[in-house]
Amino acid sequence: MKKNLQTLKGFRDFLPERALAREKIFETIRTVFAKYGFLPLETPVLEYKEILEGKYGDEGEKLMYSFRDRGERDVAMRYDLTVPLARVVAQYQNELAMPFKRYQIAPVWRADNTQKGRYREFYQCDVDVVGSSSIIADAEVIACLNEALIALGVRDVVIKINNRKLLDSLIAEAGITNEIAAASTPRNDKNGNARNNRRAQVMRILDKLDKLGPEKVREELALVGVGTAERKKLFELLGTDIQDPKDILARFEGLPGAGELAALEEVLLGWGIKNYEIELALARGLDYYTGTIFEIILPDAAQYGSVTSGGRYDNLVGMFLTSPNFAPSRGGESKGRSVPAVGGSIGIDRLVAALEELELIKYDLVSDVLVCNLEEDLEEKYLQIARDMRAGGLKVDFYYEAGKLDRQLKYADKKNINFAVIIGPDEAKAGEVTVKNMKTGKQEKVRQKDLIKALSSRT
Amino acid sequence: MKKNLQTLKGFRDFLPERALAREKIFETIRTVFAKYGFLPLETPVLEYKEILEGKYGDEGEKLMYSFRDRGERDVAMRYDLTVPLARVVAQYQNELAMPFKRYQIAPVWRADNTQKGRYREFYQCDVDVVGSSSIIADAEVIACLNEALIALGVRDVVIKINNRKLLDSLIAEAGITNEIAAASTPRNDKNGNARNNRRAQVMRILDKLDKLGPEKVREELALVGVGTAERKKLFELLGTDIQDPKDILARFEGLPGAGELAALEEVLLGWGIKNYEIELALARGLDYYTGTIFEIILPDAAQYGSVTSGGRYDNLVGMFLTSPNFAPSRGGESKGRSVPAVGGSIGIDRLVAALEELELIKYDLVSDVLVCNLEEDLEEKYLQIARDMRAGGLKVDFYYEAGKLDRQLKYADKKNINFAVIIGPDEAKAGEVTVKNMKTGKQEKVRQKDLIKALSSRT
Repeated sequence: MKKNLQTLKGFRDFLPERALAREKIFETIRTVFAKYGFLPLETPVLEYKEILEGKYGDEGEKLMYSFRDRGERDVAMRYDLTVPLARVVAQYQNELAMPFKRYQIAPVWRADNTQKGRYREFYQCDVDVVGSSSIIADAEVIACLNEALIALGVRDVVIKINNRKLLDSLIAEAGITNEIAAASTPRNDKNGNARNNRRAQVMRILDKLDKLGPEKVREELALVGVGTAERKKLFELLGTDIQDPKDILARFEGLPGAGELAALEEVLLGWGIKNYEIELALARGLDYYTGTIFEIILPDAAQYGSVTSGGRYDNLVGMFLTSPNFAPSRGGESKGRSVPAVGGSIGIDRLVAALEELELIKYDLVSDVLVCNLEEDLEEKYLQIARDMRAGGLKVDFYYEAGKLDRQLKYADKKNINFAVIIGPDEAKAGEVTVKNMKTGKQEKVRQKDLIKALSSRT
Repeated sequence: MKKNLQTLKGFRDFLPERALAREKIFETIRTVFAKYGFLPLETPVLEYKEILEGKYGDEGEKLMYSFRDRGERDVAMRYDLTVPLARVVAQYQNELAMPFKRYQIAPVWRADNTQKGRYREFYQCDVDVVGSSSIIADAEVIACLNEALIALGVRDVVIKINNRKLLDSLIAEAGITNEIAAASTPRNDKNGNARNNRRAQVMRILDKLDKLGPEKVREELALVGVGTAERKKLFELLGTDIQDPKDILARFEGLPGAGELAALEEVLLGWGIKNYEIELALARGLDYYTGTIFEIILPDAAQYGSVTSGGRYDNLVGMFLTSPNFAPSRGGESKGRSVPAVGGSIGIDRLVAALEELELIKYDLVSDVLVCNLEEDLEEKYLQIARDMRAGGLKVDFYYEAGKLDRQLKYADKKNINFAVIIGPDEAKAGEVTVKNMKTGKQEKVRQKDLIKALSSRT
């Protein structure tokens, strides 16, 4: 019995203080997303397993919580928020206003090995635009994620930006062709798909630059058959000094992706967003990105890595549009069609850890006031005062059982309540209350009729 | 493939307008709960199956989504919010400030037959006080649920109140003893437990009074062996005219539960809560209630039945405290101990349906403004205006692709956006904007610098 009075490994309870802090974070994020015209979407926790199958690679499939329900359906728990989004766009295509701009903040489940900061039940917070290839959509996604982090109180936010098409071009410019050298083994990408595209292979190695450093990356590149001259040329290109949109166009004019990257910068700069860096070596792990890629780091809490990331993925949503429901875009095709999309995701657990580190989460304010209950005879008065303060918008706790003050102050302390309101027979007679500041221990007498005003100004 | 481009039976997507409306409802409820000193709790979707087993009866066990995970653990999806609460209280007993006041708004899963208004994935919204037997706790639960409904805009809210101990006493007063007549078959209660307590049997029959009417109920009572005289006496007692706390005490003095009921009324009246009725025949289905019971109906949407209900359940949480972790309250006992608790629950789906009926849900306000995109040359200006309006706190959508106005207004219409901001070359030159009210179709010209002010006053 003892063994099971606990949560499953990788699953967590959020006790009130933490649950409250998370709720506030979500609320802040939602408010910012709404300003950019994004609307919430809720999808079920369980989906038909077939909906999720084949989307996350072998590795993903292994980590999926799936089972057969009592109606003999194969079902699976939500693994991310992108595949449900793709299903929704396909299923409600005639109802949805396109482009479809939605956010979703919700838990997902992966039976992964647990370790510090990695859980089996964790929240994702995704914001996406489906159905537009405009670079302004890319800019809105980046801008609203950036603004959300700033709204959470982070002072130093750095957005790293690149473009997959440009990165691919630069790898090609370095002389790296798309044929795989016979010696190199085909590798699996993060989604578990074996990929024979050599430039994609190079991208996956470049993605480790931050973690491994340039020396190790050079070694890995050599291992997959990238020669010395090509490596040198590649690092030269990736090290190009880019200060503003003009530099990109001057240096890389005509290369696929250069125009997009410059245009994205123009929009961001037009909005006064200057806290970005073009990082030509930025690759991002996932194979499905097709254009803009970005990640956001908080330099003051750099050990948490990128707390937010995303990019454009013009081919992913179309995977779902192979359904017979769906008219293919050109006659006869059954391979589905391209549905342009761009989005980003906040890693809530990393973000919360980073915000804690930066002391930007206040765990200490749960209720404003505890009305102490000293004398049964005065209970009616206590209840009246509690009611009036609640009507005045204060968060008020009442100590149910009349008794010793000590115990009640301990309760206030344990619940991190800011003020205790104390009324004994003397105070009652004089029409006064004693207000004890639980943080400083300071006490003061206040006229009963001035209580709400006095407390409102202090909370 | 077509078959699966859908959600599972009994599972729902909430597209933006509905998701937004639900979010607002939750936010309103949370704000009210917080004023009463209740704090949020989050528990995992999956629990060890053993935690949930044996808590909901055979019927409940059949409806539970349970499976064996890849680590060979038997796990189950959350079936309600009460059992996880009980686990949390037992597991963190040394950390939690007692009494523990928490709310939880979260989905639960039951593989029930689906029908209108009954889903397999649905939200519960529970508020509970664990660890106090004070009647003030009962009053706070009722008061905050009542206030939440009022805060959602409901004008007519009726709270029906009774006390299980008093009801049991009245059944006994009517001459109905606790022995089961040989002729009557033991019945299963709603939790699937066979109960041999005859007065509990009578209570379960009384619970159907609203649904079946008094005639049917009399018949059912006869079937379980309640004689004519007892039935007459019982209905007489249940029909006692109770206008205020004094009536209860005068009429039922000394009967268990009478004092509690009168005290509860005193507190509610002291808080100015008058929209309640004492309903002596109110039984509530669940067996585990031990004192106060209540339900809340909205007379203007009476077909949805009770949108909220609850009561005191002093023996339920203790079930979990049989763990060896737990010191029994008196030496040597291993049966667990009584942990007083009181709580209530809002049936979110019923409530949403009722609010829809009462036209209290606004589905029409999603974004405030669409900035139309007519001329590529003016895009920089459009983006500037979008940015400024967002900075001013407005919810702003931007039409990504420059093009015909018609299409953009259709988009605004489909997304239920309030205003379209239109700037063609003429307006741009004159420093003006055309603001189109999408509801009325009315257009007016506004100076560009006055735009935010003009729109803020209209949204």
